[in-house]
Amino acid sequence: MDELMSKTLRVAIAGLGTVGAETVRLLTKRRTIISSHAGRPVALVAVSANSKSKDRGLDLNGIDWADDPLALAMRDDVDVVCELIGGSDGVAKNVVEAAIASGKSVVTANKAMLAHYGTELASKAENCGVILAYEAAVAAGIPIIRAVRDGLVANELSRVYGIFNGTSNYILTAMHESGRDFNEVLAEAQELGYTEGDPTCDIDGIDAGYKLSLLSALAFGHTVDFKAVDIEGIRSISAIDIAYAEKFGYRIKLLGFAEKTNDGIRQRVHPCMVAKDTLIAKVEGVFNAIIVDGESVGATLHYGRGAGAGPTASAVISDIIEIALGRGTPVFGLPVDKLFVSQKARQELMRCRYYLRVGVIDRPGVLTHVRNIMSNQDVSMDLFIHNDYNQRERMLLVFIIHEAEEKLLRKAITEIVNLNDDQKVTVMIRIVDL
Amino acid sequence: MDELMSKTLRVAIAGLGTVGAETVRLLTKRRTIISSHAGRPVALVAVSANSKSKDRGLDLNGIDWADDPLALAMRDDVDVVCELIGGSDGVAKNVVEAAIASGKSVVTANKAMLAHYGTELASKAENCGVILAYEAAVAAGIPIIRAVRDGLVANELSRVYGIFNGTSNYILTAMHESGRDFNEVLAEAQELGYTEGDPTCDIDGIDAGYKLSLLSALAFGHTVDFKAVDIEGIRSISAIDIAYAEKFGYRIKLLGFAEKTNDGIRQRVHPCMVAKDTLIAKVEGVFNAIIVDGESVGATLHYGRGAGAGPTASAVISDIIEIALGRGTPVFGLPVDKLFVSQKARQELMRCRYYLRVGVIDRPGVLTHVRNIMSNQDVSMDLFIHNDYNQRERMLLVFIIHEAEEKLLRKAITEIVNLNDDQKVTVMIRIVDL
Repeated sequence: MDELMSKTLRVAIAGLGTVGAETVRLLTKRRTIISSHAGRPVALVAVSANSKSKDRGLDLNGIDWADDPLALAMRDDVDVVCELIGGSDGVAKNVVEAAIASGKSVVTANKAMLAHYGTELASKAENCGVILAYEAAVAAGIPIIRAVRDGLVANELSRVYGIFNGTSNYILTAMHESGRDFNEVLAEAQELGYTEGDPTCDIDGIDAGYKLSLLSALAFGHTVDFKAVDIEGIRSISAIDIAYAEKFGYRIKLLGFAEKTNDGIRQRVHPCMVAKDTLIAKVEGVFNAIIVDGESVGATLHYGRGAGAGPTASAVISDIIEIALGRGTPVFGLPVDKLFVSQKARQELMRCRYYLRVGVIDRPGVLTHVRNIMSNQDVSMDLFIHNDYNQRERMLLVFIIHEAEEKLLRKAITEIVNLNDDQKVTVMIRIVDL
Repeated sequence: MDELMSKTLRVAIAGLGTVGAETVRLLTKRRTIISSHAGRPVALVAVSANSKSKDRGLDLNGIDWADDPLALAMRDDVDVVCELIGGSDGVAKNVVEAAIASGKSVVTANKAMLAHYGTELASKAENCGVILAYEAAVAAGIPIIRAVRDGLVANELSRVYGIFNGTSNYILTAMHESGRDFNEVLAEAQELGYTEGDPTCDIDGIDAGYKLSLLSALAFGHTVDFKAVDIEGIRSISAIDIAYAEKFGYRIKLLGFAEKTNDGIRQRVHPCMVAKDTLIAKVEGVFNAIIVDGESVGATLHYGRGAGAGPTASAVISDIIEIALGRGTPVFGLPVDKLFVSQKARQELMRCRYYLRVGVIDRPGVLTHVRNIMSNQDVSMDLFIHNDYNQRERMLLVFIIHEAEEKLLRKAITEIVNLNDDQKVTVMIRIVDL
């Protein structure tokens, strides 16, 4: 231990995008204090990225450049490799595997890779006796991995949920504040740089699903199972839904939930209506907030910036320091052979209240039809007819459905939709009591 | 390392109050999963408390009983001593020192002891090569020590602030919700068991000050300096102040702040008015919330139950598991010889806005007097005269003071108070923009 603590920890960074560059900047600027906290010198020795000539505003003097990130990952003079390339497989995964195989610890911010290959990589890290750290992969600067893995470890956790994607929360917040519609606000978010290139991953809930799958594994001790996450995004939410939510006392948020049920582990990401006086409803803009329900501790909430160069680099460096200190733990809190394979709880068995908006053709008897469909499925509801709908032949119906099993509601929705040939939009939003 | 990980970690608990008893219960009930996370068996081997015969509802079968906690702390067959006795010195401190001196790691929830002797004890732990862990001492179940020490370690922190005392937050919340006055609500809190015996420590801000002094040391890297904390409690807050806060768009909260200033480190606990749409304003009842402002990460907020047997035992056990894993760090994040001795920033140099309520004798010219006093100190303000004051000879004046240095305001207050011989209550509440 004492011998270890006098040796310099030699760091390599693969990928110099915004996060990689900020990590370089922080490691340089705060080198002295980082080394003090690490108990030994921490030095950046090598970097790798696509283009050496690109001006990133970095002083890379004295730091080796590698064109090939794989070669970087296997260098003899490196102790820790930070994989900040991104992408669920390809180069990023190759770099991580090569580093692990050559006995180096790895720090990564790559939620997509871990969501798909987390258990496999954890196993490799374990077999090679190295640390695989990923605080930056979930909610960036919020130290939620440490909170769940270390701080709340004494608890039997029942549920982890929250706002895992800042872009979609920004869009929903802006829609709420301005009354504007989804597409307009999305365009604004893209202009402001809150979405990078293709916004699909953010607004369709996939990014949130990646993070949720990692926290679920950590919270409940199962192997990572991204495919088991039921995911819906926010594309279908319109200004009219935001206005109705307000009217009923709710805010619409894109939430992810990982929860223990009698039917297995349920992982889901979807828009929710939550009472507007809850803390989670007050989380606005690009912020993330994650709530962990533990048996002994009750609810704890962890809030902050879930993306961006600074917050993500902050998390990467916290992991580097833990590695310097030799403070390893199993990747998902338990050795891989103690992780269980989770059974996927069926979303259709979930019970809650629902907000439902459907358009129907305004024909005699249609309301009676709709009411009959609902009551045949034992679904009770309050009905609001939205009169200022601009197509005269159609009616917009807004329902608040009393607590019901999702299976029954889905049947009712299908039947209602079948009343119309030209039915385009049906929006169902779960009302969640938190 | 491998040899270490196959050995049972032998735990002793000194003190079987609500927290000690709950820790025993959790260690027993969740022994298997705790050992899995710890990577080796964790076993409770001995306990000590005042009365062996008292029924605590615990099964202590097979666990040694020690009448003398000092003897417990020095047993050869113990690796970790949990000090859950309480009190800033006396037995608690003796137990901790004895355990450290005999080479055992220590877990404590004792904020008073650490606030007074934290640096000294850290030094002793360091010299003896043992871990001194205290996640439970600050905000109980919220893993805020880990967040600041490990998760946010890459950041230069500028400020840590928040609600550190659940009892006083409960009282302020209940006053807000019911319009009742302080004493009535305090009596209710005592009935509900939210205060233990003497409520002084909670409502006078001392408990919050203890916790703040520990987080300040950790956040900024200085030696613990509880005496440098300026502390005001909530006894003087009345229903009328709560009502005015509401009218002006604020909530009154007892906040603690540790912040870097050009003048040194400022540590303070006092009632504040905060805008009612801030997250901190929404933290109700017995909950705690702590916000950490970091250079890279921005603001992160950490929320949960800051007291109670379950949350505190949860934190104690998280520390035991870290000790089992051999995951030590310096007690305040840096070796004691790297902690600096902080200079106390002068509260009187602080600038903010203020709410001020004073009673004056209703004499001709008194308002002109008051206005002159304020303008002589260059203090500008808005004045509200509270007319339904029930003593006819006196007027209640409520001011919103524009941004001013606290020194000037204090001079003005003294002069105003001198206008009246019988002036009893002057309430000054800082308005804090967060």
